[in-house]
Amino acid sequence: MDTSSPYAGGVAWIEGEFIPAEDARISIFDTGFGHSDLTYTVAHVWHGNIFRLGDHLDRLLDGARKLRLDAGMSKDELAEITKKCVSMSQLRESFVNLTVTRGYGRRKGEKDLSKLTHQVYIYAIPYLWAFPPQEQIFGTTAVVPRHVRRAGRNTVDPTIKNYQWGDLTAASFEAKDRGARTAILLDSDSCVAEGPGFNVCIVKDGKLASPSRNALPGITRKTVFEIADAMGIEATLRDVTSHELYDADEIMAVTTAGGVTPINTLDGEPIGSGEPGPMTVAIRDRFWALMDEPSPLIEAIQY
Amino acid sequence: MDTSSPYAGGVAWIEGEFIPAEDARISIFDTGFGHSDLTYTVAHVWHGNIFRLGDHLDRLLDGARKLRLDAGMSKDELAEITKKCVSMSQLRESFVNLTVTRGYGRRKGEKDLSKLTHQVYIYAIPYLWAFPPQEQIFGTTAVVPRHVRRAGRNTVDPTIKNYQWGDLTAASFEAKDRGARTAILLDSDSCVAEGPGFNVCIVKDGKLASPSRNALPGITRKTVFEIADAMGIEATLRDVTSHELYDADEIMAVTTAGGVTPINTLDGEPIGSGEPGPMTVAIRDRFWALMDEPSPLIEAIQY
Repeated sequence: MDTSSPYAGGVAWIEGEFIPAEDARISIFDTGFGHSDLTYTVAHVWHGNIFRLGDHLDRLLDGARKLRLDAGMSKDELAEITKKCVSMSQLRESFVNLTVTRGYGRRKGEKDLSKLTHQVYIYAIPYLWAFPPQEQIFGTTAVVPRHVRRAGRNTVDPTIKNYQWGDLTAASFEAKDRGARTAILLDSDSCVAEGPGFNVCIVKDGKLASPSRNALPGITRKTVFEIADAMGIEATLRDVTSHELYDADEIMAVTTAGGVTPINTLDGEPIGSGEPGPMTVAIRDRFWALMDEPSPLIEAIQY
Repeated sequence: MDTSSPYAGGVAWIEGEFIPAEDARISIFDTGFGHSDLTYTVAHVWHGNIFRLGDHLDRLLDGARKLRLDAGMSKDELAEITKKCVSMSQLRESFVNLTVTRGYGRRKGEKDLSKLTHQVYIYAIPYLWAFPPQEQIFGTTAVVPRHVRRAGRNTVDPTIKNYQWGDLTAASFEAKDRGARTAILLDSDSCVAEGPGFNVCIVKDGKLASPSRNALPGITRKTVFEIADAMGIEATLRDVTSHELYDADEIMAVTTAGGVTPINTLDGEPIGSGEPGPMTVAIRDRFWALMDEPSPLIEAIQY
């Protein structure tokens, strides 16, 4: 890898041009900033293979359609640009972001939503861990916030991946104040929603469950469910109550930016044994094995 | 006014430099974009006077404090830069935006909130109307959305002015689909919250009321309350139920980007007489008169 290349720190595609990621800037009048009016996805590249790009693009385009956003490009075109960002960067492990925004108009601050030109921004940068890597191995800590709930589907549609993180950011600060790494937010019905950037799965009596509402339909979670199925583990999307969360044998945080991370303690008290549980460990190891195993899930980047 | 000046379309202050507004761009890695992690305010200049800038800055800095954001500048410094943006633009009527974001880190996509350098962005552009000006005079139309509620204070603190507009944008599209200009959102308790970019005040039996929770404490609304007080009208911040909204004698939408706009119909049915009501008209006219009247509320821009 040529680290003197201007692209070594990552590559962005902004308004039709490939540029070094560090130079990537967007108009302050883009309503993706000005009203967080956008959808996005984060895919990852591991050992030179991009994982489930098709699934990421399907969800991105579905979210855009629900928001009445026109990406102006086909799934194939988006895939080509994405892969070119990665190959130009020469990154073998990369965090890849695609965002479709409502964009901006000819008139600065245009308020008529029909007069805005939608924008697509794509970048590939070095892989980012949502949790420090050692915590993915040895487990991490979480709290249930006392002061904030996750916005419900009657306000912001959680099936459209979004940056409306006010509740998640407040929860992150509360976790830090209480000496924990992260937070698991409940919804207004006291059912589990999600954490800042991850889905939550619980294990009880050998069965796996994850929230059916007020949570992103995560691609990593989808993979976890497929792994569970292949292992003969019953896995269900359904309401998961706060009682079930605290009483779980195992809790895992699942996300593209970190795979499958065991949560050892909740509000300072151990979950199960207080060590990574056997099902979490088995699924986590299988998840990472998939990154190197020839299958339709991965595609080698042509560097 | 020299329209050939590069600043004639507005001026922005971005990372320490005054530039033409149309060139204003921010890093794609700013978490103000990437997690909508910010607070902002919009003030306005009318006939060369800036209105209640001190109140706007107080609310901005209060919101920043609640978010643990450090603007890195005093209220006076922010005021000076803001007024310089306006004077450089030569705009006599201007829409002025100040935003404080969590910013970005040395590492692209940095996830540790403590490693980000907070940013302040300021711009002054030609005045924007939230509603077409004729609708401010003759009244406009609204619906109560069927499909979306305003996120409540248990998710995103509405006293921190924010861009988490997913619910408001969905409501705007629903209004358009149903042939109305805008929407008035209820909260999850079926009390009035706010609309896309405006506070709601109702009038019933000569008394004025506006929601005490799940709505921004708007500077225009504060002004409306002060005007009402000076006119001897009882005005109260309290819960306003959906019943009270539909049964109101008058409804007004109040915002910096439009002053006081009568809402003539709700869900296609007339409010009161279906024409702008007498109290709305009196308060609206008094509001605009304040823009030219020497008082501590206004400050002349030194062009």
